[in-house]
Amino acid sequence: MFSRVRSAFMNVVGGIEPVVGMKDVDGPSDERDRHRHLPHKFPYTRPHFLQLHTEEEIAVTADHHIRPIIVPRDINVMPWSAGYAEAVNAGKSMLNEDQACIHRGLLTRQDRNSSDSHKAPSLPYVYFGIFDGHAGSGAAVAAANQLHHIIHEKLVDIIDHLIPPVVQMEKSSRSGLSFFFPGKEVSKESLITGALESAFWDMDQLIGEDKLKYKVNGGCTALAALFIDGKLYVANAGDSRAVLVRHSRSQPMSYDFTPESERQRVRRLAALQPELLGNEYTHLDYCQRPVQKDIGKRILYRDWYMTGWGYKTVTPSDLKLPVVHGEGKRSRVLATIGVTRGFGDHELKALYSNIPIKPFLLCQPEVKVLHVDDEEEWSEEDVLIMGTDGLWDVTSNERVAEIITKSFKQFPQDENRNKYRYTSAAQDLVMSSRGKLTERNWRTSEGKSATIDDISVFVIPIVDYKRDHSAWLEQNKALREQISANMNSINSNVVVERAVHNGHPQDEEEEVSLESVMNGDDEIDTSAPLRLELQ
Amino acid sequence: MFSRVRSAFMNVVGGIEPVVGMKDVDGPSDERDRHRHLPHKFPYTRPHFLQLHTEEEIAVTADHHIRPIIVPRDINVMPWSAGYAEAVNAGKSMLNEDQACIHRGLLTRQDRNSSDSHKAPSLPYVYFGIFDGHAGSGAAVAAANQLHHIIHEKLVDIIDHLIPPVVQMEKSSRSGLSFFFPGKEVSKESLITGALESAFWDMDQLIGEDKLKYKVNGGCTALAALFIDGKLYVANAGDSRAVLVRHSRSQPMSYDFTPESERQRVRRLAALQPELLGNEYTHLDYCQRPVQKDIGKRILYRDWYMTGWGYKTVTPSDLKLPVVHGEGKRSRVLATIGVTRGFGDHELKALYSNIPIKPFLLCQPEVKVLHVDDEEEWSEEDVLIMGTDGLWDVTSNERVAEIITKSFKQFPQDENRNKYRYTSAAQDLVMSSRGKLTERNWRTSEGKSATIDDISVFVIPIVDYKRDHSAWLEQNKALREQISANMNSINSNVVVERAVHNGHPQDEEEEVSLESVMNGDDEIDTSAPLRLELQ
Repeated sequence: MFSRVRSAFMNVVGGIEPVVGMKDVDGPSDERDRHRHLPHKFPYTRPHFLQLHTEEEIAVTADHHIRPIIVPRDINVMPWSAGYAEAVNAGKSMLNEDQACIHRGLLTRQDRNSSDSHKAPSLPYVYFGIFDGHAGSGAAVAAANQLHHIIHEKLVDIIDHLIPPVVQMEKSSRSGLSFFFPGKEVSKESLITGALESAFWDMDQLIGEDKLKYKVNGGCTALAALFIDGKLYVANAGDSRAVLVRHSRSQPMSYDFTPESERQRVRRLAALQPELLGNEYTHLDYCQRPVQKDIGKRILYRDWYMTGWGYKTVTPSDLKLPVVHGEGKRSRVLATIGVTRGFGDHELKALYSNIPIKPFLLCQPEVKVLHVDDEEEWSEEDVLIMGTDGLWDVTSNERVAEIITKSFKQFPQDENRNKYRYTSAAQDLVMSSRGKLTERNWRTSEGKSATIDDISVFVIPIVDYKRDHSAWLEQNKALREQISANMNSINSNVVVERAVHNGHPQDEEEEVSLESVMNGDDEIDTSAPLRLELQ
Repeated sequence: MFSRVRSAFMNVVGGIEPVVGMKDVDGPSDERDRHRHLPHKFPYTRPHFLQLHTEEEIAVTADHHIRPIIVPRDINVMPWSAGYAEAVNAGKSMLNEDQACIHRGLLTRQDRNSSDSHKAPSLPYVYFGIFDGHAGSGAAVAAANQLHHIIHEKLVDIIDHLIPPVVQMEKSSRSGLSFFFPGKEVSKESLITGALESAFWDMDQLIGEDKLKYKVNGGCTALAALFIDGKLYVANAGDSRAVLVRHSRSQPMSYDFTPESERQRVRRLAALQPELLGNEYTHLDYCQRPVQKDIGKRILYRDWYMTGWGYKTVTPSDLKLPVVHGEGKRSRVLATIGVTRGFGDHELKALYSNIPIKPFLLCQPEVKVLHVDDEEEWSEEDVLIMGTDGLWDVTSNERVAEIITKSFKQFPQDENRNKYRYTSAAQDLVMSSRGKLTERNWRTSEGKSATIDDISVFVIPIVDYKRDHSAWLEQNKALREQISANMNSINSNVVVERAVHNGHPQDEEEEVSLESVMNGDDEIDTSAPLRLELQ
């Protein structure tokens, strides 16, 4: 048994190639066959804002030999002319398993008696999401299509806090309003954080449920940025990364979750619930893995409660494979998976075994908040970078700041073209990590190994949101004063606009099922040519 | 059932008095009776460096009405004239449940063939430990008597890394030396960290085993500082705290572990292993605890995977008591215990129930390292403060820095008396948190509530260790050169000095049992008078 696991392990972490066994494998063959015949809930495609509609257009993006850098064909669909660029992998999977999404949302509080919905107090927000799929693109596509709707639902849930009633009601028939002023003070920040956290949880649950009815293969990491109420919320579950570049310096807005960084969490769980290890793995960690002939010798190890090292005497059970093994990019949970947070992977088993991996994974994001509405000045050059690990494996946070700064400097200061600067910068970042094909290898401009992974990057200006938010503050103040003045009746009822609507607010009591949450239709400009950069 | 738990809970967190049910209770009465007849492994006493020997002297320290501030009677027993002061609680327990220990250790590598052990390469270290007991003083006394010996054992285990052989051996018969240069590079820092972590684990195991044979009541927090190899290691498990005061500014050297700060860890465990909650508690958290009439209403809650808040609809199971409840100093695990890390509490049950609390507690310390041997200058005024929560509940980190700075300034610059400055500062700190008895309440000089808890404080100068370490570096270099020159035989064997010795190094293969680890006899100067400050 051990030698089998070991040799499997060597296949996984020993070579340059990623996990072979993870490609589109969904468990034992009969289960897999059943799964193969299920319909897709969402078809594979590229991010909606790229406006690629034909199979041919999509096929061009997935050329593993050219790896074209794809950018949006119409910059006007991007909020604040935010930049985006992507490149497919060098052949590790057939499709580009990265997915992305942008959503402009509006939370509206409406007076049921008022016919003029334009005068209702409302709060706009902008969302960017990036999802790096593995073992298939199903989970990433599902998240790109649905996470923002779930987040919207969660924000609607706390609308009383985000958009307080213009005139305070004493009590309402609406359930929950008795808790409108809870005993403990709860900040809007902690409610929006909670909304993101529970949305990530629901998203993963939904994928789990959908896997019974649809073909949703694999798993994905998730990184979401939400600009709302004068702040930027970054929620991260996985090894994609958000970095703020401000005054040309990088500042992390998320921390990578990998088997390496989550070693202690995973080992602690393994120690608590050893049955999850199927008698084939150990929660212990070794400086150098012991072999048969080491039995009885002293070896450097660490238990789950140690961050440092100590000595133990090798026993036969030390020959089991550590639950987290390998270093850095090669670290794996149960010798199989290289990420520890995100969505999906419900059916994933450890290589050559029947041990489920899902218990060791978490969909819980870490949420970091940036106060955009503070006193500090923001310049046009201050941007949020969001990228999948394809970017960060090659290009460091500091190097990204350098590239961005250089890119902005070189961009012509021409008002007409100025809006392309963020796209251009995103393209430069993808270029930096993709490199060029020299002989048979992808190499960076410094001649180092480039990434063979998919790369997706957003470059989002911060100052534009600050401007939008300041304008909104003024409008909102004026609107509320106006409503307050016009209001004769205090006892109005509250109607809350739900996520899925066509201008007609739904009944407040109606449950919006996750089933019904679908991607909205975007207005599309098909006049612009598909813009591919073949460098 | 719920109302019973609720009323128990109110008793616990509702009043000023600490947990009534925790006073010396060791489970059901038959178990308790059995426990009562067990012998003590270590008698109750005050820290060894206070040199209090008679029952009368010890009784004076425990006067709840006067709460005398006790300091060492002979400053010369303190390494670097480090300061210490303590005061007993105002009556919440009969004895002062804080304990402390100082230990000067020496790790020695010896050439078996050499008769001159003074010429063996060795590494000195200095250890300070502080232990805040609860529900009895047994665990704190056990830790004060034994933790430093266990740490010594763990350091001996890694002696090959701390004191490398003068002449490198190729291979030795000694098991483990084949791992002397492991594949992965392991720093001395991570080995010393590992030594502390596994020592804390073993200490807790030992108390658990001893509870079967001896009367070891209650539990305790643990905070240890280890000056070794040019660095300061601070290991913390509990709500005692270490703070560095440097250039008159405070800098945390540990973080408090409390039900509040460990809410997420405890709730996650409760969600993973709901059987630990005995169907009486829930892993959920509520902004305001729901009552029967709230069923069906919306309430602000958070699940284990949320740091923020969200809404849920109240169901009957939401009427269970949260596994962590209450805020700040009043937060409790299972409505019973106010600390989440430390030693002991193996038999502790939740109030009025049979639910064990130990699974929610951790003995794992967080280890923070300070490079004393760096380039930076250290002044006589730069000190490490270690204090139990009695200090920190009243006096903040910043205020401690102010008091220390003021205390040093006011202390006469007289060479003879200079060595008392740290004791004097420790006394000022205890005074700040104990305050004075005005009418029937203990009040600070600002008229605020003082602590009614035990207070213990160390004030340890850093620069003295830096000087000692520099001197050692010189000596060690000279010694190694000398040994190297004298050495004719390469193939010498290594003998490692064990913790329990009387000048005769034990056989290297001999197992030192935890049983045999006892407190060493300190040389005591009984000539100095007992110094009590009755302020």
